Amino acid sequence: MPVREMIKTYPAQINLNRERLADAVLALIDCAQACTACADACLSEEQVGELRKCVRTNLDCADICQATARVLSRHTGYDANISRALLEACITACRSCADECGRHAEMHEHCRICAERCRACEQTCRSLLEAMS
Amino acid sequence: MPVREMIKTYPAQINLNRERLADAVLALIDCAQACTACADACLSEEQVGELRKCVRTNLDCADICQATARVLSRHTGYDANISRALLEACITACRSCADECGRHAEMHEHCRICAERCRACEQTCRSLLEAMS
Amino acid sequence: MPVREMIKTYPAQINLNRERLADAVLALIDCAQACTACADACLSEEQVGELRKCVRTNLDCADICQATARVLSRHTGYDANISRALLEACITACRSCADECGRHAEMHEHCRICAERCRACEQTCRSLLEAMS
Amino acid sequence: MPVREMIKTYPAQINLNRERLADAVLALIDCAQACTACADACLSEEQVGELRKCVRTNLDCADICQATARVLSRHTGYDANISRALLEACITACRSCADECGRHAEMHEHCRICAERCRACEQTCRSLLEAMS
Repeated sequence: MPVREMIKTYPAQINLNRERLADAVLALIDCAQACTACADACLSEEQVGELRKCVRTNLDCADICQATARVLSRHTGYDANISRALLEACITACRSCADECGRHAEMHEHCRICAERCRACEQTCRSLLEAMS
Repeated sequence: MPVREMIKTYPAQINLNRERLADAVLALIDCAQACTACADACLSEEQVGELRKCVRTNLDCADICQATARVLSRHTGYDANISRALLEACITACRSCADECGRHAEMHEHCRICAERCRACEQTCRSLLEAMS
Repeated sequence: MPVREMIKTYPAQINLNRERLADAVLALIDCAQACTACADACLSEEQVGELRKCVRTNLDCADICQATARVLSRHTGYDANISRALLEACITACRSCADECGRHAEMHEHCRICAERCRACEQTCRSLLEAMS
Repeated sequence: MPVREMIKTYPAQINLNRERLADAVLALIDCAQACTACADACLSEEQVGELRKCVRTNLDCADICQATARVLSRHTGYDANISRALLEACITACRSCADECGRHAEMHEHCRICAERCRACEQTCRSLLEAMS
């Protein structure tokens, strides 16, 4: 698990719980990949015309989770305001994507799994945000 | 100017002013590139040890502006909540980065230019956010 | 033009022509944004079912151009092998995307513009690659 | 393990072995995160002045691995030329980063772990590339 190992070896102080931070980075990375793959799987479905919004929300959620995973992987010169605002955006994106994928979860297995990852990521980001304030 | 051309040719309705949207995407792309280049220029300075926070804030700002430029380049299945939350995060990141780069603007020309791009991006994102509500 | 300004203020030596490098970064950024916007415009077309490959190639090309723009914006500890290999990949992606968008250029104005940006980016990357060897 | 689950549920044919593809995506994501974290950890070291090249190579490797993970997470309208060229670039970046981090592996635990992830990623990408030709 490189995320946990890397955070353990950070050579200076981190003002947040390292375990909780690692959990968030892991959830964000998982969610970003699931959303990238779900957008592509939707694109392959016969009914792609009905999945336009799902593709788009997936792409947005992937970009936002990826940026958030990077920001939370940096501890040097930490700025709580940036992390907090980005976590808020990430929670919004994950919730929207979970809702949208959830609408097709019974039809498309990839949407069911992706909705799960988005919910998990939303929860983990929310916990981290609460721990920060 | 491909940003303006592309937004003009979008084949469906956009609920926001296309000129204003294009302005925001352009400012975000400029800012992301300036921050990426400034982080690297700081890394090359003799006093890199005093520029750690500046490098870090530049990297964060670049990632957040890039994600925001992508989200604002998509109009299909538009979700105002995601755009709004991400613009808030972007404004926070740009302001922090402008402040941090501003501290070294007299010493380092790259920090002076980068601070300018961050201020410009912050303003453009704020205008778009106001137009959205 | 922050790309040119930033490269002018880089505080150490660059082993490549700064004008040519700036041209490449500008072309890459333009191309990445056009591809992101074209993927989304395709998604909005009634015939999205016939544009699946176009959306996908656009998304790949955007990701590769964006990574290349970032790598070429860094000059500290420059490694020619990485730049060369990535430029090769970028040229391949731009050519594929220009071909794919070119197939729908008469039907869709966004594909016509995007194909142009991909061709321009391919040429600029090729010139830089030749100048590097 | 969402990467494996997502690839299993892709609704169309994939011309590559799904297990091997999932291995590559996992290695790429791990490597990208390790490089992002290692760049930041280097930035926090007292001797940051001697780690400039390491920070830079880490940032390049993170960007290239991340773009490659995204491209390999898409199967719709697959273009072997793009994947092959990008895998070549990724192998080059991982090797350079493993070499550079390897130089500081005895001094810095984060460089030791990051070098390991880069080597693992290089190997996995090489295997996939061989399986593709």
